[in-house]
Order: sequence, then structure tokens, then C-alpha cells
Amino acid sequence: MKKNEVNVTPWEVSGEIDYDKLIKKFGVSKIDDKLLNRIKKHTKDLHLMLRRNIFFAHRDLNWLLDEYEKGNKFFLYTGRSPSGPIHLGHLGTWIFTKWLQDKFDVELYFQFPDDEKFLFKKNLSYEEVQKYTYENMLDVIALGFDPKKTHFLINTKHANILYPEAIKVAKKITYSVVKAAFGFNDSKNIGEIFYTSMQAAPVMVPGTLKNNKKIPCLIPLAVDQDPHFRVARDVYPKLGYPKPAIIHSVFMPPLTGISGKMSSSNESKAILTTDSPKEVEMKIKKYAFSGGKDTLEEHRKKGGNPDIDISFQYLKFLFEPDDKKLQKIYDDYKSGKLLSSELKQILIEKINSFLKEHQKKRELAKKQIDNFLFK
Amino acid sequence: MKKNEVNVTPWEVSGEIDYDKLIKKFGVSKIDDKLLNRIKKHTKDLHLMLRRNIFFAHRDLNWLLDEYEKGNKFFLYTGRSPSGPIHLGHLGTWIFTKWLQDKFDVELYFQFPDDEKFLFKKNLSYEEVQKYTYENMLDVIALGFDPKKTHFLINTKHANILYPEAIKVAKKITYSVVKAAFGFNDSKNIGEIFYTSMQAAPVMVPGTLKNNKKIPCLIPLAVDQDPHFRVARDVYPKLGYPKPAIIHSVFMPPLTGISGKMSSSNESKAILTTDSPKEVEMKIKKYAFSGGKDTLEEHRKKGGNPDIDISFQYLKFLFEPDDKKLQKIYDDYKSGKLLSSELKQILIEKINSFLKEHQKKRELAKKQIDNFLFK
Repeated sequence: MKKNEVNVTPWEVSGEIDYDKLIKKFGVSKIDDKLLNRIKKHTKDLHLMLRRNIFFAHRDLNWLLDEYEKGNKFFLYTGRSPSGPIHLGHLGTWIFTKWLQDKFDVELYFQFPDDEKFLFKKNLSYEEVQKYTYENMLDVIALGFDPKKTHFLINTKHANILYPEAIKVAKKITYSVVKAAFGFNDSKNIGEIFYTSMQAAPVMVPGTLKNNKKIPCLIPLAVDQDPHFRVARDVYPKLGYPKPAIIHSVFMPPLTGISGKMSSSNESKAILTTDSPKEVEMKIKKYAFSGGKDTLEEHRKKGGNPDIDISFQYLKFLFEPDDKKLQKIYDDYKSGKLLSSELKQILIEKINSFLKEHQKKRELAKKQIDNFLFK
Repeated sequence: MKKNEVNVTPWEVSGEIDYDKLIKKFGVSKIDDKLLNRIKKHTKDLHLMLRRNIFFAHRDLNWLLDEYEKGNKFFLYTGRSPSGPIHLGHLGTWIFTKWLQDKFDVELYFQFPDDEKFLFKKNLSYEEVQKYTYENMLDVIALGFDPKKTHFLINTKHANILYPEAIKVAKKITYSVVKAAFGFNDSKNIGEIFYTSMQAAPVMVPGTLKNNKKIPCLIPLAVDQDPHFRVARDVYPKLGYPKPAIIHSVFMPPLTGISGKMSSSNESKAILTTDSPKEVEMKIKKYAFSGGKDTLEEHRKKGGNPDIDISFQYLKFLFEPDDKKLQKIYDDYKSGKLLSSELKQILIEKINSFLKEHQKKRELAKKQIDNFLFK
């Protein structure tokens, strides 16, 4: 890959992404006002991630709503590949998924593909992945999903549910296809090659279990995961299942700047859900990329750039739900009225207030795991 | 592949096989008298399949006996890929495996890889494979394995046991390796590519379950299955498990002649375990390739050739345990004293007597499946 080139696959996101170009490249549809209004008819309000175009694209969402309006309820499917601790960048999709679950009153299948990163990361041991699976489940539970309607599928522990579906998908995908879709070469291990069919499997699980293959599925995901389903969506109809609808988010940028997404390379600088208030403060003060000017004087005179300021972006993505307040922060920062240190302080307080609650719920989650495991 | 060329892979066996060449090509060792005597020290007698060189080659059998003599008991692992009914050609390995289980008093893990043929045969449905899995289990149980020491692993139903082991193996096998070992090309589906790791997994299961990776494993198999383990044997030590020992049989020839092994192409002519006495008689009379001469006169004068006579071969493989009686049949046929029709009659009676018992036990097996499923 050339330097500065944009690359978006399930295992690498690099470069400064032009999401309009990505929409064309991936062949997905933009979420427009008409579609937002259609969603709002059912949800009454719109989640900030819809209002702010953080969930910006989709596949077949109109079909999904057609089915819903006919009384054919969908289920949600999303997941987390456990390979490290949870940081703030992971939470957006799940918070939005919970909102969908509440608004549409639907079941959620939440996959923990503990096989994936084990297969793709040379030095990640099976035991480490098991540890992270446990830790990551705590964070998901802490977000408040309804245990009666939420089913965790851990790929190794629930392989007797997933593997039978995965081989049906796998039978219809050649190596040539995954090679092209994911840019693989012959030095890939045979588990990596097979893996996409395990990620495809949960789409079929409720239909198979309920002996009704026609149950629609909606997958909220960050857009880098789309290639898995681009491959699998061609397969589902051949097996009698409808193609799942997908709703795609942009990436929450890493603390260090707006290119790419939070990744292992800067994980030590990311804010973890287990960080103490002091750690949060340190990380934001030290690492959060600023759109402010170099000197106080210059900032007051020329103003900052909130569009590249990570503290502002985090408020926009997750921590300031009030659009008017957010707009005021935007304007004040742009005019120079609000200083970078002040903006950072707003974010620090918001995050620490969120994490205080989250960490409490995360403790309680330790006793709730069994209620969430698929049975 | 050129016409008349010999080809031995887990999915195709064709041509007239020179087993001495195969030993060199596969890099396995011949079972010699010294090794037979060493086995006999423990088993008191030798199974006809050892006496008659039907199990003719091995890997690491001396190491396995070293361990056994040190008190480190092995377990047996063999299997059946359910894709059709059981015919006589399938039974040899299992009858021999039961003998090993009885003589060494060891556990047996018996795999039914219901994923394999589903993935490899385009027109075989998932439902058909499930039906054959059930039917095939009845035949295995009917052979009299000890349910307390025999554990059936069905790949889809026990995927939560097998898949976690399979991915550990898969992580260490590249596509290049399976491509070379099995002659795959890029049009293979991603399940076929992954499959070998599911066949490798049971070698690790008892060690993982008992938290003692050092338990040795002995795999009795027909020699076409060796390539799976040729690939996997390099991997086990990297995961802390010893390489399994293997004992290889030649193929029981199809009724229609001594080339190749019984395969789907002549399955309709094979003797099934569910055949009636009339069907057995008809199939042997009609299809069993004869080493006799064209006319009675010529046969009496010049004698027949038992080495290519399928009825004689079946007596040798399974149905005449008495070496002296077998030798007499051999001599009488070769001299012309015994006619082809008489030889066929001997076999018909032997098979029908065997199947009468087998079919009774096969009926009883319907209530025993649960005792054999791994739990």
C-alpha cells in the first residue's frame, strides 16, 4: 500500500478517510433525511449518532423498515472481537445498538468472536483472548442491555450453535472470493481464511432456532466490518435467509488525531473504561490532539478548529447529547472564546462522570454474565 | 492426473496401488516381524489384520509402546465421515480398533465429521449428512465397543469441544501447506480449506480435558487419511502435545476388482450392512470379481488366481479368521480344486452369518446412542 493511501478492512484502518468515497467504493447507501424521518416515525426521537451522521450509511434499511411495518420484527446482531481492554472508541456502536433495542423492542445477538484475533494476531495467546472475552463482556453488560432479550454468543463456547451455520456459508465461498475481498495471500493460515463464515453465522442463528428463516436482521457496525457481510450477503439467499440490513458508523477517532481509528498501535494512549479519573485527565491533557492555536494570544484572535480537535469530536460522538450545547461549544471554540484547556476540561468532566457510573455497573456485571450467555 | 496413475488422497483413491511405493512416498514405516512381536508381548495373540499385513505401516508405534510400557496409557482415535450407508469395506478399521481397545484396555474417541463430506460434496445436503450420521453410528455401536470407554464426537454437535482445538491447529497451518498436501486450488471453498484442522482436533481433546497434554494417541486408519496427519503432526508439538502414532491399513478392495477402494462410484455394488441374505448373494454372484478361469475345464486344469479374486480377498480381510483354513482355500483355488462358484458360496455364507448378528445388534444400537455421545 502506498503511503497516505486510505485502507479500510476488518483488520486495518489507516489514512484519512473520505466517507463519501467509501460509500461508493463499498456500494452502500447514504442515510438521508427521508430515511431519518422514516426511522423517527417509529422511535419518536433520533439518537445523536443519527442526528450527527455518525451512523452515516446503510444497506437495505428501507427493506427492514418495510418488514417491520408489516409486523415482521427484526433482530439486532453486533459484536466485539476480544483482543484487549475496551476503550471509549468501542462503545459508540453498542450504545447505539442498545438504543435500537429499546426503541424497537427487539432481540439482540451479541457475538464475541474469540477465535478471530487469536487467529489473526501471531502473538496473542488463546488464554489471553479468554481473559479479554470475560473483561469485554462486563463492559457490554454495563451499558444496560436487557438480559431477557440479549444473547451473547462466544465463538468457541457456542461453536455447536455457530459452526453448523458457518459451514453452510463456507460451502458457498471460495478461497478466490475471500482473497479478493480481504486482500489475503497464500501465507494466511487456514483459520483466518475460514473465519469470515463464523462472523456470518449469527445472521442465521435465530432463523434456524425458530425454524423460520425469514426473520430479518439488522447489523449495526463500524464500516470496516462491512467486507465480511459484503461476501456473506450474497450467500444468505442461497440458503433461504434474507440478506441482513446493515447500518454503518464512521470511526471514532483515536485521541492522537482524526486519521484512522483507535487501534492497537496507540492503545496505550486510548481511554479505557477502567481508567481512573486521574488517568483520564492525564491522557486527555497529554494526548488529546488539539485544534487550538499554538499560543493563547493567537487562539483568542484566530480561534481553534473543532473539526480536527479530538476533545470536541468526543463530545460530538458520545459525551454531549444536547445539540444546542454542542453547537455553542463549537462556535465558542471556533471564535477563540473557548480555550483548548477549557474544552479539554469539559470533556474530562463528562468522561469521568460517565465512567464513574460505568465502572459501578461493570462491577455488578460480574454476577450477571450467566444471564446473558446464549442457552 | 494421467490415466492409470495412482492417486491417494483423503478424497480420491484410484489406480492399482503399490503399497511399498506408498510407504516411501508418504514417509511411513513398514510393520515388520520385530514390531509384531513387540505388540504380541502385550496382546498375547495378533489380530488377523496384523498377521496378514492388512495393517501394514505405521508412524511412531515404537514410541507409543515405549510410553505404554512406562505406564503412560494411550487413547485410540478413529472415525467415519458420514456421507452414505456403511458397507463391508468400512468395517475393517473399526473391528481392528475394537480389538486394540480390548487388548490394551484404552479409551476410544470416535469422530463423525459430519462437516467433511457436506463441504466436499456439492450435492450432499446438511440434512442427508445428519441422517447418515445417525445410521452410521448404529453400525459402529453394533461392533461392540465398550460404551464406558468410547466417546463419539460429531463435528457439528461437539463443535464447542472440537472448534477451540481446531483453531489452535489452524493458526499454524497456512493455505500454501494444505494446497501442497491435498492438491487444492483457489476454487476450493473456505470450509474445505479449514476442514483438516477439525480432523486434527480430537488428538488434543483428551489432553486438554484432562489437563495433561502428554497423553499419547494412536490412530488406526486406512492409508488415504494419512495426509491429514502428515500436516497436523508437525503442529502438535508446537502446541505442547506429542505427535500421535498412526497404524495404516491397505484398502479393502471394492467387489468389482482390486484397484482403488470402495468408493461412491461403485457404492451401489458394495455390500451394505443392511443388505438381506438375498441381496448379499446376488451382489457376490453378480459383481464379485473372480480370479477363476473362463471355463470349468480350464479352471480345473490351470487353477484360479486368489490374489485378484475378490471373494478370496474378503475372506482374507475379514471373514475367515483361521489362517489354516484360509491357506487351504488359497491352495485349493489356485490348484483348480475349488471352483469360483464354490468360493463365492463360502463367502456368501460367512457374510450372511456375520450380518445376521450385526443387524440384530444394529437394531439394539438405536437405544444406545446416548451412551456413546461424548458428554
